[in-house]
Amino acid sequence: MVSTERLDRYARLALQVGINLAPGQDLLVDALVEHAPLARRVAHAAYAAGARYVDVLYHDRRLTRALVELGGDEALEWTPEWLVRRVEDADSHSSAMLSLHGDPEPDLMADLDGTRVAKARMPALRAATLRVIMGPRVNWCVIACPTEGWARAVFDEPDVEELWRAVESVVRLDEPDPIMAWREHLANLRKRAAALTERRFDAIRFRGPGTDLMIGLLPISTWLGGSDETASGRTYVPNLPTEEVFTTPDPRRTEGTVRSTRPLVVGAVTVRDLELRFHGGRVTEVRASSGEDVIRAMIGADGGAARLGEVALVDGTSRVGRLGITFRSTLLDENATCHIALGHGLAVGVQGGAGRDGDQLRELGVNISSVHTDFMVGGPEVEVDGLDQGGGAEPLLRDDEWQLR
Amino acid sequence: MVSTERLDRYARLALQVGINLAPGQDLLVDALVEHAPLARRVAHAAYAAGARYVDVLYHDRRLTRALVELGGDEALEWTPEWLVRRVEDADSHSSAMLSLHGDPEPDLMADLDGTRVAKARMPALRAATLRVIMGPRVNWCVIACPTEGWARAVFDEPDVEELWRAVESVVRLDEPDPIMAWREHLANLRKRAAALTERRFDAIRFRGPGTDLMIGLLPISTWLGGSDETASGRTYVPNLPTEEVFTTPDPRRTEGTVRSTRPLVVGAVTVRDLELRFHGGRVTEVRASSGEDVIRAMIGADGGAARLGEVALVDGTSRVGRLGITFRSTLLDENATCHIALGHGLAVGVQGGAGRDGDQLRELGVNISSVHTDFMVGGPEVEVDGLDQGGGAEPLLRDDEWQLR
Repeated sequence: MVSTERLDRYARLALQVGINLAPGQDLLVDALVEHAPLARRVAHAAYAAGARYVDVLYHDRRLTRALVELGGDEALEWTPEWLVRRVEDADSHSSAMLSLHGDPEPDLMADLDGTRVAKARMPALRAATLRVIMGPRVNWCVIACPTEGWARAVFDEPDVEELWRAVESVVRLDEPDPIMAWREHLANLRKRAAALTERRFDAIRFRGPGTDLMIGLLPISTWLGGSDETASGRTYVPNLPTEEVFTTPDPRRTEGTVRSTRPLVVGAVTVRDLELRFHGGRVTEVRASSGEDVIRAMIGADGGAARLGEVALVDGTSRVGRLGITFRSTLLDENATCHIALGHGLAVGVQGGAGRDGDQLRELGVNISSVHTDFMVGGPEVEVDGLDQGGGAEPLLRDDEWQLR
Repeated sequence: MVSTERLDRYARLALQVGINLAPGQDLLVDALVEHAPLARRVAHAAYAAGARYVDVLYHDRRLTRALVELGGDEALEWTPEWLVRRVEDADSHSSAMLSLHGDPEPDLMADLDGTRVAKARMPALRAATLRVIMGPRVNWCVIACPTEGWARAVFDEPDVEELWRAVESVVRLDEPDPIMAWREHLANLRKRAAALTERRFDAIRFRGPGTDLMIGLLPISTWLGGSDETASGRTYVPNLPTEEVFTTPDPRRTEGTVRSTRPLVVGAVTVRDLELRFHGGRVTEVRASSGEDVIRAMIGADGGAARLGEVALVDGTSRVGRLGITFRSTLLDENATCHIALGHGLAVGVQGGAGRDGDQLRELGVNISSVHTDFMVGGPEVEVDGLDQGGGAEPLLRDDEWQLR
């Protein structure tokens, strides 16, 4: 059993660096039942830090499995109204939101019909949550929560101690002064993002084994990294860890093929060896050695699910990448290497986008969807360039090393 | 670890005998995080029985403890709006509701300020839930869920197998045909209730060590037992187990003293040796060897919390009583012996009361409160009589044996 002291250190980091909780603020926590030991210490630490009320909601993937296995078609996509109300209230109260990730049973749905699995994702709740976290009224953060089950999925044995040490390393809890280490790291990411935004690249190009992909950017695409800010000026770090700089691309201008360089987990199904072909911004071909039907169903979810909403660059100094572990968790794995996301575009990734949603974002040229699924496309064998309007190329990543100064 | 087969048998009994789930109905389940293994099998069994959607909400008393320990005064009585919305939606959708009881840490709050513990009970949610379950649109049931922690609290060792066997015995799962056993038992309780209602007693009197209490009834007080019925005619059994016949008394006419014959748990504080004095229907004196402050705070919650809302009779054939175990859970212990409840009166316990709430119930003479706390007052040493208008007494219970035919 993990010690209370260990949980408390992590909880405090999440609240100080991730959430940056304000005294008197309400905190919403979303966790799996298996995450209860950490969720409880988060609540304790949050009250100690002056939270007004901590509202923890436990989700349970076993319940989703029962629904997919035995439920009627109509109920598969159902979202109880109160779940939507909960996040909308968080928005109107300017609450903080913390989400604990780390699936204790990533293969739980592997034997079920992938189309049904993909549907059982509460689209109304996901859409509401995306709206709220892109607010920009809510300071929010996603962290990982080690469990025995997750450790088994990563290491083939339930070595939760090893997983704890890995997570502590990627969130810099192994530093003598984690808060200071985060301050330096975030400044570095900000500098990288500023340099990219200043160049105003017209497109980003990925080239490597199975990959030759050109992702067009918008004239208003802005690069960001590390921290974000609410409308009221509260800085927060949406993901612990975070190693990426990212922007919102032009959903009409993706061309070519891309091969995923790491497995990803969608709705508790592991998707391996994913290959996509894009034309005119849309996915036109899908292949995968496992989980292909889940990706197909996800892409068919709505008009925007087959187009890109994010492109993100990560170099080889990434603490996640350097561990060489595939965590089977997007939160961690997306920070190992470069990645792109199908679905909803990040409002903050375009000038004037923060706080806009739906039609307003669409008018700015941002992709709109109920899904946002990251998958990893980078690595030492993948070259990344920034392309200017005239076709000139500037190297961004070579052999996993950052090139742009 | 308890077997899936064992959980499934219990889940099916709860759905068939307790809830009487209709195909296509939504089911709300309220459980503690520690109850997840049973809650999951309930969800599975409910979908298998044709439920449309199963909405499980996990509560966590450790979170309440953090709030009581560290939270601000204003937040103590706070109820997030979405929690109220959830039960109100269940009412308007005519859903079914199942609640899993059995506190894995009944002494969790023992070291905290009893006044604060009593406040941290979400009065708005409790009031909404009482309104909804007295609907009468919702078929609902409360069952017990054995856990290691609860077993430790009952037996002083974590013998969860022993607790499972006790629970299975009191819910008649040890019978060759539990469904048939329940049918007979419910018929017997109904017969008892009908005989009591027919007598139209003016009052019930309890006399025993430390107890001489007269509880006045209303002219419209109706005795019930076993099953209940929704407005649409769906029969259900609100408590598994159930051994009581009960009615709603006149909140203005309780006189005398009463000594509780078993400990009760309020807000995770164990109250022992409770003694109350009533005058004019109200509690005028409170004494207890532990938990006295929790009872005082509870009684002060609102105008109706110091008056009675229920009187219930249980004889020595009770399966709970015969086990001789104090479960430290009201659901079970109240079925061991006669009990009375401070707080909200049961709408179904008066003629024309079903489906009424608030002012309508008050006009009928029923007690209105945000609390409803049962405590045990019966046993072999306690004589119970029915009194008629003229002062004549008819024995109801002698030496724990039922007298009325």
